[in-house]
Amino acid sequence: MKKIKFAVAGLGRIGKIHLENLLQINTIEVVAVMDPMKESRDYALEKKIPFITSTYKELLASTNFDAIVICSPTDTHADYVELAAKAGKHIFCEKPLDLSLKRVVEVLDVVKDTNVKLMLGFNRRFDKEFKKVQQLVKDGAVGDAHLVKITSRDPGAPPVSYIEKSGGLFLDMTIHDFDMARFVVGKEVEEVYAKGAVLIDPAIGEAGDIDTAIITLTYTDGTMAIIDNSREASYGYDQRIEVFGSKGMVKADNNTSDTHQLYNKDGVNSSLPLHFFLERYEQAYKAEVSDFIDGLVNGTILPVSGNDGLQSLKIGLAALKSVQENRPVNISEI
Amino acid sequence: MKKIKFAVAGLGRIGKIHLENLLQINTIEVVAVMDPMKESRDYALEKKIPFITSTYKELLASTNFDAIVICSPTDTHADYVELAAKAGKHIFCEKPLDLSLKRVVEVLDVVKDTNVKLMLGFNRRFDKEFKKVQQLVKDGAVGDAHLVKITSRDPGAPPVSYIEKSGGLFLDMTIHDFDMARFVVGKEVEEVYAKGAVLIDPAIGEAGDIDTAIITLTYTDGTMAIIDNSREASYGYDQRIEVFGSKGMVKADNNTSDTHQLYNKDGVNSSLPLHFFLERYEQAYKAEVSDFIDGLVNGTILPVSGNDGLQSLKIGLAALKSVQENRPVNISEI
Amino acid sequence: MKKIKFAVAGLGRIGKIHLENLLQINTIEVVAVMDPMKESRDYALEKKIPFITSTYKELLASTNFDAIVICSPTDTHADYVELAAKAGKHIFCEKPLDLSLKRVVEVLDVVKDTNVKLMLGFNRRFDKEFKKVQQLVKDGAVGDAHLVKITSRDPGAPPVSYIEKSGGLFLDMTIHDFDMARFVVGKEVEEVYAKGAVLIDPAIGEAGDIDTAIITLTYTDGTMAIIDNSREASYGYDQRIEVFGSKGMVKADNNTSDTHQLYNKDGVNSSLPLHFFLERYEQAYKAEVSDFIDGLVNGTILPVSGNDGLQSLKIGLAALKSVQENRPVNISEI
Amino acid sequence: MKKIKFAVAGLGRIGKIHLENLLQINTIEVVAVMDPMKESRDYALEKKIPFITSTYKELLASTNFDAIVICSPTDTHADYVELAAKAGKHIFCEKPLDLSLKRVVEVLDVVKDTNVKLMLGFNRRFDKEFKKVQQLVKDGAVGDAHLVKITSRDPGAPPVSYIEKSGGLFLDMTIHDFDMARFVVGKEVEEVYAKGAVLIDPAIGEAGDIDTAIITLTYTDGTMAIIDNSREASYGYDQRIEVFGSKGMVKADNNTSDTHQLYNKDGVNSSLPLHFFLERYEQAYKAEVSDFIDGLVNGTILPVSGNDGLQSLKIGLAALKSVQENRPVNISEI
Repeated sequence: MKKIKFAVAGLGRIGKIHLENLLQINTIEVVAVMDPMKESRDYALEKKIPFITSTYKELLASTNFDAIVICSPTDTHADYVELAAKAGKHIFCEKPLDLSLKRVVEVLDVVKDTNVKLMLGFNRRFDKEFKKVQQLVKDGAVGDAHLVKITSRDPGAPPVSYIEKSGGLFLDMTIHDFDMARFVVGKEVEEVYAKGAVLIDPAIGEAGDIDTAIITLTYTDGTMAIIDNSREASYGYDQRIEVFGSKGMVKADNNTSDTHQLYNKDGVNSSLPLHFFLERYEQAYKAEVSDFIDGLVNGTILPVSGNDGLQSLKIGLAALKSVQENRPVNISEI
Repeated sequence: MKKIKFAVAGLGRIGKIHLENLLQINTIEVVAVMDPMKESRDYALEKKIPFITSTYKELLASTNFDAIVICSPTDTHADYVELAAKAGKHIFCEKPLDLSLKRVVEVLDVVKDTNVKLMLGFNRRFDKEFKKVQQLVKDGAVGDAHLVKITSRDPGAPPVSYIEKSGGLFLDMTIHDFDMARFVVGKEVEEVYAKGAVLIDPAIGEAGDIDTAIITLTYTDGTMAIIDNSREASYGYDQRIEVFGSKGMVKADNNTSDTHQLYNKDGVNSSLPLHFFLERYEQAYKAEVSDFIDGLVNGTILPVSGNDGLQSLKIGLAALKSVQENRPVNISEI
Repeated sequence: MKKIKFAVAGLGRIGKIHLENLLQINTIEVVAVMDPMKESRDYALEKKIPFITSTYKELLASTNFDAIVICSPTDTHADYVELAAKAGKHIFCEKPLDLSLKRVVEVLDVVKDTNVKLMLGFNRRFDKEFKKVQQLVKDGAVGDAHLVKITSRDPGAPPVSYIEKSGGLFLDMTIHDFDMARFVVGKEVEEVYAKGAVLIDPAIGEAGDIDTAIITLTYTDGTMAIIDNSREASYGYDQRIEVFGSKGMVKADNNTSDTHQLYNKDGVNSSLPLHFFLERYEQAYKAEVSDFIDGLVNGTILPVSGNDGLQSLKIGLAALKSVQENRPVNISEI
Repeated sequence: MKKIKFAVAGLGRIGKIHLENLLQINTIEVVAVMDPMKESRDYALEKKIPFITSTYKELLASTNFDAIVICSPTDTHADYVELAAKAGKHIFCEKPLDLSLKRVVEVLDVVKDTNVKLMLGFNRRFDKEFKKVQQLVKDGAVGDAHLVKITSRDPGAPPVSYIEKSGGLFLDMTIHDFDMARFVVGKEVEEVYAKGAVLIDPAIGEAGDIDTAIITLTYTDGTMAIIDNSREASYGYDQRIEVFGSKGMVKADNNTSDTHQLYNKDGVNSSLPLHFFLERYEQAYKAEVSDFIDGLVNGTILPVSGNDGLQSLKIGLAALKSVQENRPVNISEI
């Protein structure tokens, strides 16, 4: 069988992870890589990637490939996706497509016209914990879903310089939870009420953002979800989910480095959650790229669509509006 | 030492529990009991209570006692407390004092004037799980509290006839959680946003109530709390709490009948939460009565004040208004 | 219905627990108590026991009762049981009947001849954890039992003065585990191999005892059990059980004061096992006395027989011989 | 830096795992592979291994490499190690070196003379669970070790044809636990008492083996260990460890595919242990090969020596003798 030819645009932290995972899959080959940083290109050189360039233009122009994985900075996503779509390449793009709703709609229209396949990198959908919960809910194990609870806390706030350009807590961090809220019960959100506070670092507030939040989502059928966020959980990366329904409840806990329990006179001590997303979602990153390739090979519908990105962005924008106006906001207002 | 003389008004389910617990405490004696039902008075007879009557008036008039435990129906609480206070009796009264804010304020004024001691039966404050969490928070184990999460789900909805007179989900059921939200971090609530739905039984909706709810509380210092409620958890009584703060997080889980784990080819099976409040809070009911007596004996401040009842009622009324108007409601509006 | 009349002989730590539990049961009344210590008799006085004496002889001679609970020192058990049986009293006796096999057989013969009912105080059979495991095994949840594992560790070694008169680790402490090994799978033990060591306190070795042990039991059908013992677990009282069989495995864990988990940068901390047997087996002590009374009232077979005591003693003596001779010992050798 | 050249002998189940792991390590290259089966050689071809052969002789003769990973059948290990050592190759060999003590000693003498490095594949030492326990014990977290408990149960018995040539339960399966017993507390075993039974399949008994066992180990300093084994745990691969000492106790539990808990009216259900060693020890296989390479690169002592294999074999042979003679056997007897 002919191998699918891949290109990777952007070799930062996530880009390198995707590249490593791609290199281990026998049904594809990575033929080209693009990154403006020399250090990243050297990294690609060591991996023996045939074509290495510093510009996206050259990547598209001078090599022949079937699919592209876009992991460049957020503000390049929309343009890169548009160009790749027009060049007839299938696209895996890190979330979000863009922070502007208008631009996202434009890009998705181009993708639709060009008939290429597009998948967004909502990696948590591929986490074995969340997938198990989603599968059980889908299989009816909890009956009709009534309540969804998502806890999502980062181990430490990013630098304020990052926060300033991030789009804010909801578009940068909670957007994953918005996607999870839709994914885990397969329902659409209709209304958002978000309450935010600056409890960790006043500098975050000065940068116009919040660091702690509680968000209530109401789905179109009356089901409700709660998300709680913090930029800084002293004990690590806290990622839990729970779905309560008419027939039962299912929840998934954090992953830990090991299961040890140490008993001594001071109590019982055990291991903390895995430190951050690279550790917690290591397996999920592999699975999402693998599922993208499966979709290309088998012509099946990709597991995360452009619309999934669009919906999460809408919820995020509604949350932002809700905090600003301290009132529930209907998605139709966005 | 002379034993404190106790009376008990109302020998329903909770009244019987309080009576049994009182009978096991050596420093007091139960000298009188009142209940309009013959079955309950027969029960008291078997327990060899010296004076048994069917009316509150007679109870107050014809016997000599120091303190009274009021477990009669909710709509008698305010009157009974008022009369007991005027008679100079110390009072332990089941929550709530009344569903009308105005009446509660009136009663508390009478109590204040008469100088008797009053304690409200927020039994969950005496649950070893919640007490442990509260103590750890107080001791600074989680640093500054940022988020409080309370899950509180009943194993089954009460009859609609009960619901109609209950004051609704917030005043009947969530009021315990409102008290817990205040108790566990020792802070006052300023704003409430509540979202409710009828997801279990349409008849509950027809009775003007909801059966499922998510409530966001904001404390005066910006700390936030989330409560999630359901009238019917198929797997039993679900009572959990979590406090997240600047230095850590503490949570307490449900209690189970045993710790067994059965491994077989179908998975690992373990025991459900204790069935309902009588089982889960059995120890708490003992502890609260014991603490009330300690307070009387030692002259210390009682652990649950009339104001605690007042504040929880205010939060409950704000939650009700919030659901009705679908907007956050400030406690000062109540 | 006429109440069964009870006497209690011996009001030490366990005697007081039994007395308290008896006083809460409505179908019986405690009419007499005997203890040589004035402090204990004062305690009984406060409990308003009608007849209080310092000698067993007087107890039997001068009062009229149906059943006796014997909680006096071990070396009085055999004589007291014999005398009570001859006086026609039903007997609940703390374990062991005696440390001498010959004497136990003699006493059981007397009991048999007199036709009174005898139950031994193997309290752990009434612990909700172990009972659940035993019930699941009995119900076939694990299929044919292959392996039994019992962990039984005390929080601290008793004084050497106690150890010297205790009969040694196996007859004093492990005898409970021997009974549990028989109880949990309903099988008889055929062979014992015990390995002991003095790892905690050399003084225990000088007193002729061991403080740490591993015992392998082989049942008549080839099923095997392992028991591990220590006189001193720094983290508290460690009481766990596991049964592995052809269809599954069931295990029960320690009980803790609460379920809290505290997450901070140092890890996750939770509560230790309940401190010692009075706390861990509080509920079991109630249940065993209640079951004894049920047996008397309903004429059913009592849940722990004299033979149960005999068999556990035999296993204990075999374990002792096994350690001394460092070889497996067949029960038939005892 | 020049890459270390590796050969792999034997591409069965484990051989393939080692090859895959080796191929992902940048500091080495796999230059040759040997397997008598065409299917395995085709597999190597697909992996683009430069030199592929069907005989060990040819492997050693015709290619130039620095280190060899031996995963061929057990009865070839001794010869292959001897030949590789004489050819000056560093050796990673799957356990056991041989089932004959005499032959193992011979081979280790050759290795010693030739000065090559030898590491045995006791993969469980590299499992994160067991490593954590060992590290905590080493760091003094439990004080002086008193008791070691190892549960090791397979999900299903291998075919009788395999069992017949396996060396029996102790040399085939328990040998890993013997190594773990030594590893986790860093002490040598002096005496073994093993009790075995055929409780799963009579055919295993007819083949001269047992399928269920309890083994008591006594270390030279009096510390004791218990191992329990079964060839067939209906619920999967059960691999747990516990170390109890003067200051505390540490234990590690099984790994599961996910942490989900499903609550419904039938109880709480969660996931079983990972199915078998390939899943449970996936990470450990990676780590052991990585540590072997680290040892070669840095000239440090390899983490598992030939002597480790020798000692575990001795314990295994003592266990076999103990079962046959039903008595404790001193290692010095072997």
